[in-house]
Amino acid sequence: MTLWTLARRSARLNPSIIREILKVTEQPGILSMAGGLPSADTFPIQAIREACDRVLTQAPREALQYAASEGFGPLREWVAQHLGGMGMRVDPGQVLITTGSQQGLDLVGKVLVDAGAPVAVETPTYLGALQAFNPYEPIYTSLAGDADGPLPDSIRALPHDAPGTRFAYLLPNFQNPTGRVLPEARRLALLAAAQAVGLPLVEDNPYGDLWFDAPPPAPLAARWPEGVLYLGSFSKVLTPGFRLGYLVAPPALYPKLLQAKQAADLHTPGINQRVVHEVIKNGFLDQHVPTIRARYAAQCAAMAEALQRHMPEGTEWQRPQGGMFFWLRLPAGCDAMALLPQAVAQGIAYVPGAAFYAHAADPRTLRLSFVTLSPDDIASGVATLGKVLRTHIDGTREEAP
Amino acid sequence: MTLWTLARRSARLNPSIIREILKVTEQPGILSMAGGLPSADTFPIQAIREACDRVLTQAPREALQYAASEGFGPLREWVAQHLGGMGMRVDPGQVLITTGSQQGLDLVGKVLVDAGAPVAVETPTYLGALQAFNPYEPIYTSLAGDADGPLPDSIRALPHDAPGTRFAYLLPNFQNPTGRVLPEARRLALLAAAQAVGLPLVEDNPYGDLWFDAPPPAPLAARWPEGVLYLGSFSKVLTPGFRLGYLVAPPALYPKLLQAKQAADLHTPGINQRVVHEVIKNGFLDQHVPTIRARYAAQCAAMAEALQRHMPEGTEWQRPQGGMFFWLRLPAGCDAMALLPQAVAQGIAYVPGAAFYAHAADPRTLRLSFVTLSPDDIASGVATLGKVLRTHIDGTREEAP
Repeated sequence: MTLWTLARRSARLNPSIIREILKVTEQPGILSMAGGLPSADTFPIQAIREACDRVLTQAPREALQYAASEGFGPLREWVAQHLGGMGMRVDPGQVLITTGSQQGLDLVGKVLVDAGAPVAVETPTYLGALQAFNPYEPIYTSLAGDADGPLPDSIRALPHDAPGTRFAYLLPNFQNPTGRVLPEARRLALLAAAQAVGLPLVEDNPYGDLWFDAPPPAPLAARWPEGVLYLGSFSKVLTPGFRLGYLVAPPALYPKLLQAKQAADLHTPGINQRVVHEVIKNGFLDQHVPTIRARYAAQCAAMAEALQRHMPEGTEWQRPQGGMFFWLRLPAGCDAMALLPQAVAQGIAYVPGAAFYAHAADPRTLRLSFVTLSPDDIASGVATLGKVLRTHIDGTREEAP
Repeated sequence: MTLWTLARRSARLNPSIIREILKVTEQPGILSMAGGLPSADTFPIQAIREACDRVLTQAPREALQYAASEGFGPLREWVAQHLGGMGMRVDPGQVLITTGSQQGLDLVGKVLVDAGAPVAVETPTYLGALQAFNPYEPIYTSLAGDADGPLPDSIRALPHDAPGTRFAYLLPNFQNPTGRVLPEARRLALLAAAQAVGLPLVEDNPYGDLWFDAPPPAPLAARWPEGVLYLGSFSKVLTPGFRLGYLVAPPALYPKLLQAKQAADLHTPGINQRVVHEVIKNGFLDQHVPTIRARYAAQCAAMAEALQRHMPEGTEWQRPQGGMFFWLRLPAGCDAMALLPQAVAQGIAYVPGAAFYAHAADPRTLRLSFVTLSPDDIASGVATLGKVLRTHIDGTREEAP
């Protein structure tokens, strides 16, 4: 590497721990609760195939040509209207279609983060956001939290001197990894704190539509449009393979994000945007998303029951009200990363929680996905996890003097 | 904007001049020679529709799920083999599928460019590369050149003290904007100079397959694999709407580029990769690309003839041997940017050359695309351009004392 000189920021690019774990766990025969994938059983294959055919019959030249960096107009309008149904007031001109929500995070980093600038994140937070922001070399502040999410006081305690915290990155709904939702009261308190100190927010909402019994409260962006940059995605309600996400920016921010988008990949594939719009334009998601909710709710119930039955005493978790994940805190003396090889040897996999912390990871935490296994396999996988944990705990006791 | 603080690099993000021009010129009735688009008449719509249907019938769950950041294995193998046919020796493990070649440029900037680091570019160079690199805040060195491309002496003259020039960005084949190809002798001389001073090269080759009479010489990457990062694209030989490009990196560089790719958008849409592979896997491009060459060659000939007939004395150009563009240098006293409104008023459009220079733009230059107009419209458009220029030149003479 003497010929090529790497940029300093490259030191902040690293292999994803999850990716490395997934490689191990994708061996046949492993009951993996490690993935962050939606269930392929939920993909509306027939509707997508028909939509592809219609787009390539009705507007093939437009779908296959270079297109606008902002995104496909009718899709931007759909997004604005969809978010209107959630209480946001969005002009289609504020919508930027991104190549997956991950690209939205990258553009946020590119436009808002200087090397050494503070960025506030939840504890724990979404690993992919840390990966997206890292090359822009922020200094993270981990917001203290409880079961309802970050504490308003942790926002009031942020240093607001120059260079100032650029934004707080929040995942209000069924957070990856913890599954928790911010209750209405916490949303209001966080907004009041952020407005009081002039701290902008980046609100990431890939899971909000996947509620089980009741929809989550309105987005933060609905209450403070000029202070919240909102990110959404089609990956969890339709399919991730199209790589289609979007961001909604306050008008003052939009032009720079658009220019960053253009520099990054010119535009998101036009055919993908048109096919997705063709699938959803007549209310398809109104019928489709409830089927995902029902499926995931049943799988969640199976995992809740299995955890109740098989986890050793001292294990902590909250039953999620939506999304895809359970977040466990193991009994004292259990290190989720250290135990993973034993789990894999017994035929199961999970993601150790350590990857999701900007600082001071809690080694006792782990994430379990319930959406890609059948209820029977969930029961079996969780039972095996319980056995691995008990074996470890019993071994530790025996070793004690 | 007091609430949101922009990163310093945002100052280097700006609206694309070309984009702004295209907005004006996309009015109906304008004969536009301004676009950088391939001709939609070349899109193999039927083959793509059939391939979509096969992919969504045979492997829909895989095509619509999250996928590997490196890209779809069989497509990476195809790329390695295709480049082998051009004299490169590429392992599929060196191929990274990108969301258009533009993303390859962004990843190069992210991994290799520090703020203030020198990057050498051709004079003029591809505007989109400047846009991709700009947010990483390089200091450009414009390489002096002649009709055969950059001069080897301009590479020997680069400052190689710390921090050192990170790379020279070169477009050997039918360059956008000038259309010129680097002859074999110039390639060898540039490689010798780069190797002598230890300067890595980024070789961008979106147009290499679009030759008219004879293929261009072998890529630079074929002669110096460890010192050249190569970028390719399906946008000009198939369709840009899928946003499919690729880079081939020396093995030492690959992991950081892959990590940057993962942080940028996780992966390029799997369905797009599978559909394109399905279209091309059995030699489709061997039949298809010659039809594009023949079409573009005829359009190029029409423009060459029209320029010969209509350009005022003192206008300079080279007839391109491939690609999509003519590059004109107008007679003294003609400023292409200043004349554009008059051209648009007369119903034609072009791109002023100024946008393609990192420094000291030559205001007399402009770019004409010949691929999206019929030969008749080309003749008519160039005749109008000639009239606009003559009117200006005559008016200038009359104004002279």
